[in-house]
Amino acid sequence: MSTLHAVILAGGSGTRFWPLSRETWPKQMLQIFGEDTLLHQTIRRISGLIPPENTWIVTTDDMVLNIRNHLMPLGELTGKINFITEPVGRNTAPAIGLAAVSLKQISADSVMVVMPADHAIPDAEEFLNNVRTAVKGADKDYLVTFGIKPNHPETGYGYIKADKTARVEVEGLVKVDGFVEKPDLETAKTYLASGNYFWNSGIFVWKTSKILSEIEKLLPHLFSALKEIERQMVSKLSESSKLSKVTKVTKSSKEEMVSSGMSGLGSSPLNLLNKLNSLNSLYASLEPISIDYGIMERSRDVLMLPATFQWSDLGNWTALDEVLEKDQAGNILRGNTIDIGSKDSIIFSGERVVATIGLKDMVVVDTPDATLVTPKEKVQEVRKVVEVLRRNHREEHLLHKTVERPWGSYTVLEKGSGYKIKRIVLKPQARLSLQLHKKRSEHWVVVEGTARVTREGETFLVQRNEGTYIPVNVKHRLENPGQGFLRIIEVQNGEYLEEDDIERFEDDYGRDTSH
Amino acid sequence: MSTLHAVILAGGSGTRFWPLSRETWPKQMLQIFGEDTLLHQTIRRISGLIPPENTWIVTTDDMVLNIRNHLMPLGELTGKINFITEPVGRNTAPAIGLAAVSLKQISADSVMVVMPADHAIPDAEEFLNNVRTAVKGADKDYLVTFGIKPNHPETGYGYIKADKTARVEVEGLVKVDGFVEKPDLETAKTYLASGNYFWNSGIFVWKTSKILSEIEKLLPHLFSALKEIERQMVSKLSESSKLSKVTKVTKSSKEEMVSSGMSGLGSSPLNLLNKLNSLNSLYASLEPISIDYGIMERSRDVLMLPATFQWSDLGNWTALDEVLEKDQAGNILRGNTIDIGSKDSIIFSGERVVATIGLKDMVVVDTPDATLVTPKEKVQEVRKVVEVLRRNHREEHLLHKTVERPWGSYTVLEKGSGYKIKRIVLKPQARLSLQLHKKRSEHWVVVEGTARVTREGETFLVQRNEGTYIPVNVKHRLENPGQGFLRIIEVQNGEYLEEDDIERFEDDYGRDTSH
Repeated sequence: MSTLHAVILAGGSGTRFWPLSRETWPKQMLQIFGEDTLLHQTIRRISGLIPPENTWIVTTDDMVLNIRNHLMPLGELTGKINFITEPVGRNTAPAIGLAAVSLKQISADSVMVVMPADHAIPDAEEFLNNVRTAVKGADKDYLVTFGIKPNHPETGYGYIKADKTARVEVEGLVKVDGFVEKPDLETAKTYLASGNYFWNSGIFVWKTSKILSEIEKLLPHLFSALKEIERQMVSKLSESSKLSKVTKVTKSSKEEMVSSGMSGLGSSPLNLLNKLNSLNSLYASLEPISIDYGIMERSRDVLMLPATFQWSDLGNWTALDEVLEKDQAGNILRGNTIDIGSKDSIIFSGERVVATIGLKDMVVVDTPDATLVTPKEKVQEVRKVVEVLRRNHREEHLLHKTVERPWGSYTVLEKGSGYKIKRIVLKPQARLSLQLHKKRSEHWVVVEGTARVTREGETFLVQRNEGTYIPVNVKHRLENPGQGFLRIIEVQNGEYLEEDDIERFEDDYGRDTSH
Repeated sequence: MSTLHAVILAGGSGTRFWPLSRETWPKQMLQIFGEDTLLHQTIRRISGLIPPENTWIVTTDDMVLNIRNHLMPLGELTGKINFITEPVGRNTAPAIGLAAVSLKQISADSVMVVMPADHAIPDAEEFLNNVRTAVKGADKDYLVTFGIKPNHPETGYGYIKADKTARVEVEGLVKVDGFVEKPDLETAKTYLASGNYFWNSGIFVWKTSKILSEIEKLLPHLFSALKEIERQMVSKLSESSKLSKVTKVTKSSKEEMVSSGMSGLGSSPLNLLNKLNSLNSLYASLEPISIDYGIMERSRDVLMLPATFQWSDLGNWTALDEVLEKDQAGNILRGNTIDIGSKDSIIFSGERVVATIGLKDMVVVDTPDATLVTPKEKVQEVRKVVEVLRRNHREEHLLHKTVERPWGSYTVLEKGSGYKIKRIVLKPQARLSLQLHKKRSEHWVVVEGTARVTREGETFLVQRNEGTYIPVNVKHRLENPGQGFLRIIEVQNGEYLEEDDIERFEDDYGRDTSH
């Protein structure tokens, strides 16, 4: 068997599960199914077959820090997982191409197991068995796609038509007779009845070399861009290898080069961002195209694995009906809800009270700053809500009220005229950057733990129930020297109170300290 | 014409417009119809005929400070309006009896115009014309009730059957043929068709002496309690009159006595609360009974005024459909809403985003701490939600997140383990009581205006962007010496952070300073 590498496509716009998902907090980071977030589940699931050192998360530059931070609770897996960073999202064909060209530098005969980060697959063992079967096809130079046996006439998916009668040289795989677009309901019913149509799951297994040769054949523009990316990667390798001698090297320079991807925000300490500017614009100029449309529908070497595991792509709020347990009235209730006689509804709340009366087939989702109310049959239109928010330059589509940071989190409790109040929570031993604000002063009151504060060179402890003050233009740093959480209330004063009024001088998390 | 007195029944449990109404913030205090709150509208409306000196608000002891505070924006009307305070609510017959026995002390031949505080009557002039007609009936010793011509077969009201053919000695009034219970829909339709049935509005006009003699006849238990109340009132008059010589007296001692009602929280500076303890328990022991059931349905001297003004009792959220303008899709939208294609729905929001998609005949009401989602046909069941909240000892049925106080307001921004954050807003020139907390310390940061702080005898100013600290067990006072609002952020620390950890030493608003 070839060396397996897992490639997890971790994009997502945060639209379909709004208001629980946001642009900076897409579906993969939600814990809506199971004990863990979808991305954590995806990583844990594949780790039964592929070690974290061979696991690659493909995401965009602006999401990578966020996702790294999100991986912290995974413990020892966290530090071993690799990142491949797209400068911007360009759909799955370029993302997979970038992953392939990166993997090629490490292991030319590797097999890639490509999967989305945000699908629900409860039975990991069955999934891995299916992957093992698919790998046999990959080893024989097939592109193997996973088809899901439909259990209802879904009109929201594309279908794969299988030819189960054709002889195939790998047991357990079937020939593909064609890919078909999302059908109307009548057609979907005939698909369901026929037994030959499968949902296209977006899970693929193939050799790195095979997908690259298919890209060369079918998407030559993408291929030539990937060649240029490869050329620059290779040319940076010597430089990187020289630099790595003076840094702490935990991987081969080749791996390090790749793991830092195109943005330098990978696990490598090297910041290649500025050096790879030309690649950024090259990648950004690529045509966004899906791997299904660009390769799978046109390649002659595709086989399908009829998946034997339960699967949901969790495409929108109503998908929860398929994967979550309901009460006797058919409801899924979460959080601080008071329901009087609703049926077949999904009601998600947090701390705030959400009271529902006599709903039928409705979705109600409440978050600290936004609430959604819609009949199940209209959930797709949530994207229109997100468009309105974006058009109105609001923040409710972008951020949650609580914003996660590598050191902990902050929550804006109130914005007023000339002031802003934040709750800031620091993880044990964590510290913010050494920083300065030009337009605001800050009052801090410690309400849990003990803070170590640096202010204009002086360092002192601030205990619970004590406060301190950071004037405008004064360099400061907030640290949690303790083993528990540190919680402070910050009252900012100033005419300009946005996050971008910050100059960083030192940072533990590789954030920009140039200014 | 006799001397007119307005008696405004300002009770209300805050249930039917939950979550916008709360126990401490009932419907009368909401601005849901028109430019002003319903109570303000009620007061302004009647002030075109009856001067504020002759206007009496009947409410319960625990609501009186709240309502007084609520009247502040009425300017010069505010100080002139009188209060009659029930120790506890006992429905309309005892409340009206208490009002009558109080009014009798001032003006035995007065005519009472009794009205609820929370109905919508857009045309004040027409209303007053109707009152003038009713007064003619009262002058001839009739109990006059206002009947509303139905415009739909309402099943939620009792009806008055009028006998329009019978001769009546006062033009514009009609004989009453009987009171009928809330009908079923079929019956309500026949009532609507007949033209002889009217909604019972709860607006009454009668002589004070007449209602008392009817109570004597029909509710003898209530009457004897009222006699005892009167006896004690009269016996306190001399005492009160002696005391009033050493206080600033703006009214006759008789008026002062009455205006301070039974709890001493009236406009009088005299605190009679403790002296009237026996009355409190007497009143509390009264059987709760409505004036309709106790008197109107049984008296032989009732006439009805067929009202010619538009009226709604705003009995629940759907009543807004009758009085508020709708958009082209039949929706009433308020606040920060994003709606995609809803119809015939009522959507109320505040600062938070409420996104609704394709709703039909729904009610969605969002407040800072609670959200309600219900089909219009189920709005009555909101009382069940309130019951659950009460049973679970929550606060969302009781208080709003922002709590109004005579000096301004406070908003709990966050409650955490061992801390609580409040935004405190002081009106110009206002000050909190001189107080002390035994179990919490307080950090204050001024974010608007300048504070004058008294702490352990020392008094100093705290400017915007400055903070100060009040340790446990230290007497302190917060004042706003300025002409604008003072806004401070308070971070409380302590194991016990409830409102009842307060000892007051001095207070500008007559609150308890004994401890």
